[in-house]
Amino acid sequence: MKFIIQRDQLIASVQNVMKAISSRTVIPILTGIKIEARQDGITLTGSDSDISIESYIPAEENGTVNVEYIEEGSIVLQAKYFPDIVRKLPEKTIEIHADENLKVTIRSGKAEFNLNGQDATEYPQLPKLQTDDSFELPIDLLKSLIKQTVFAVSTMETRPILTGVNVKLENQTLTFTATDSHRLASRTIPVADTTNEFSNVVVPGKSLNELNKILDDTEDKVEISVTSNQILFRTKHLNFLSRLLDGNYPETSRLIPDQSKTVLHVKTKELLSTIDRASLLAKEERNNVVRLTTQGDQLVEIASNHPEVGNVTEEVTVSSIEGEELKISFSSKYMMDALKAIEFEDVNIEFTGALRPFIIHPANEDSILQLIVPVRTY
Amino acid sequence: MKFIIQRDQLIASVQNVMKAISSRTVIPILTGIKIEARQDGITLTGSDSDISIESYIPAEENGTVNVEYIEEGSIVLQAKYFPDIVRKLPEKTIEIHADENLKVTIRSGKAEFNLNGQDATEYPQLPKLQTDDSFELPIDLLKSLIKQTVFAVSTMETRPILTGVNVKLENQTLTFTATDSHRLASRTIPVADTTNEFSNVVVPGKSLNELNKILDDTEDKVEISVTSNQILFRTKHLNFLSRLLDGNYPETSRLIPDQSKTVLHVKTKELLSTIDRASLLAKEERNNVVRLTTQGDQLVEIASNHPEVGNVTEEVTVSSIEGEELKISFSSKYMMDALKAIEFEDVNIEFTGALRPFIIHPANEDSILQLIVPVRTY
Repeated sequence: MKFIIQRDQLIASVQNVMKAISSRTVIPILTGIKIEARQDGITLTGSDSDISIESYIPAEENGTVNVEYIEEGSIVLQAKYFPDIVRKLPEKTIEIHADENLKVTIRSGKAEFNLNGQDATEYPQLPKLQTDDSFELPIDLLKSLIKQTVFAVSTMETRPILTGVNVKLENQTLTFTATDSHRLASRTIPVADTTNEFSNVVVPGKSLNELNKILDDTEDKVEISVTSNQILFRTKHLNFLSRLLDGNYPETSRLIPDQSKTVLHVKTKELLSTIDRASLLAKEERNNVVRLTTQGDQLVEIASNHPEVGNVTEEVTVSSIEGEELKISFSSKYMMDALKAIEFEDVNIEFTGALRPFIIHPANEDSILQLIVPVRTY
Repeated sequence: MKFIIQRDQLIASVQNVMKAISSRTVIPILTGIKIEARQDGITLTGSDSDISIESYIPAEENGTVNVEYIEEGSIVLQAKYFPDIVRKLPEKTIEIHADENLKVTIRSGKAEFNLNGQDATEYPQLPKLQTDDSFELPIDLLKSLIKQTVFAVSTMETRPILTGVNVKLENQTLTFTATDSHRLASRTIPVADTTNEFSNVVVPGKSLNELNKILDDTEDKVEISVTSNQILFRTKHLNFLSRLLDGNYPETSRLIPDQSKTVLHVKTKELLSTIDRASLLAKEERNNVVRLTTQGDQLVEIASNHPEVGNVTEEVTVSSIEGEELKISFSSKYMMDALKAIEFEDVNIEFTGALRPFIIHPANEDSILQLIVPVRTY
């Protein structure tokens, strides 16, 4: 194997596949990056067996030459050293050469690294997913779906299925849902041009977080294919493959109240910064609690109290309060997560009494839903 | 105590005094920030008893009003909460009021915090240093002195005196010296207008690192006063007080060779990035070793070797090599620290054989000296 490659292209590709590589894998060769050279370009692969990422650098693209003098072949190099070496090489181009004894030479300017490679045939083969059933989304929309839901997955391994996001495609409608049983986040979008249907696909939250980091915020398309135990996200130069979680995702629709007794209409940012301040006095508690009290039809008071340190109160002027008076306590962290996930200026918050879950929507936009279970205080 | 203050001024001041506050102090009141209001302005104090920082906000300065409606008094507020509260308050001005029961009210816009304060009379009194013996430096020059030496202090408590920087003032010459016994860094500058002399002042490295973070890179003056167990750095609005280390700093001048057998003249950055690359293959070792070999009178080879991973070699073209041929091994970390501390484009490196300490100077600038003890390799 031999080729000369533009350093910046290689750095970007290495960074992408590194997101799948863990130093704590039980399969030793997975601590390496697989490099495969074909005449049309170079493919890098990283995997921790839960997530696998392939990044492709075409030899030529839009008239720009990325890779030259390609002799086909493949090798695995240790991920602990290779990324830093590439990043610190002195020149804009890098020559990489692997001989039949798995000795790898990396040259750039006057710097020469001689590394011991590993046999690429020992690297696990990634499953080839059937892609007949795939559907497409703009990348920026997929990133929104992830950001608006993934924070609500459970971090506890007591119910492993809740550490994932439920992805559902029914009647050309795609829904992402996450819940840790104290709060729930979901978003629905229409998907045209697909007859594909599935309802019990659960993607690990960790996979979606990594995917969100790798994908650039563009309107290019990402193609999504699902099998019984894997999901593949494919963009122009990237294959992102994740295993799915085993088990049945709970039915969440019955949690969502279908009526409300008190409805607030409020500026998202104003409420968010007030809650943020009110949460300051109870740092050490994991989900520090704040209290919301309606006052007439234009004011709510947000308050919090720390027995030793002191207390805080702040009034927020809201656009409107409809329905019953209300005094309710909830986790400021959950509320802040929910408000941050709503990318709209105004939100409606619909309460059904102090002890029932309440829901947060962008004003005039029901496709995004955040639900929070309140805290009982005495 | 009562006043209304510009939030941004208060944030900056709080950040400065926070650098002295540790949550692990044995004196409980030192986990707080002392706030003192006088008609001329507000003084904040933070201390961990090793370092004490006072930051002063004048009520008015250059026609700008920073503090208004001052009622004199003082209070201590918990440093765990106060900085975040100040930073997140909604408006540009903040009202702070402490009553006789130590209840503190902080108001900004519609937000109101009620905090439990502590009695400022219980806060330890900072020693008033005699300043007759003080001398002055531009702040940016003091920062250079610190940056060029402090990294070389020892981090081991086996010889506590070496965890500090030796500050010496003799014959109107100020010298900073630091050594961990494997390397040494020193810088000398002339100081006019002082008859002050001292030789055994040792300032903890930690104090100088914090001081360097707080001081802005300006040409304003800092006034330095020294007593037998304290040093005070005073700028326009800041008093930075540090205890000194007990004990006798070792005589270091005899370590510095006064002759050389091989002299390299080389571009600082080029050598630095070559050493950086050569050090990549031996990450896990604390002071990974690289080898330097002269080749003729214009080239040196930098090489490193990791038994399992591989090896790296790179040639650097140097401006000149004078004297004997040389093959020497040293810690790449020490060499990189030394080269980074030298703020000049060209350096001279003077060797006295493979087993003797070698020294690094900026070309034509003897006031900055870095010394490294080589590593014996077989």
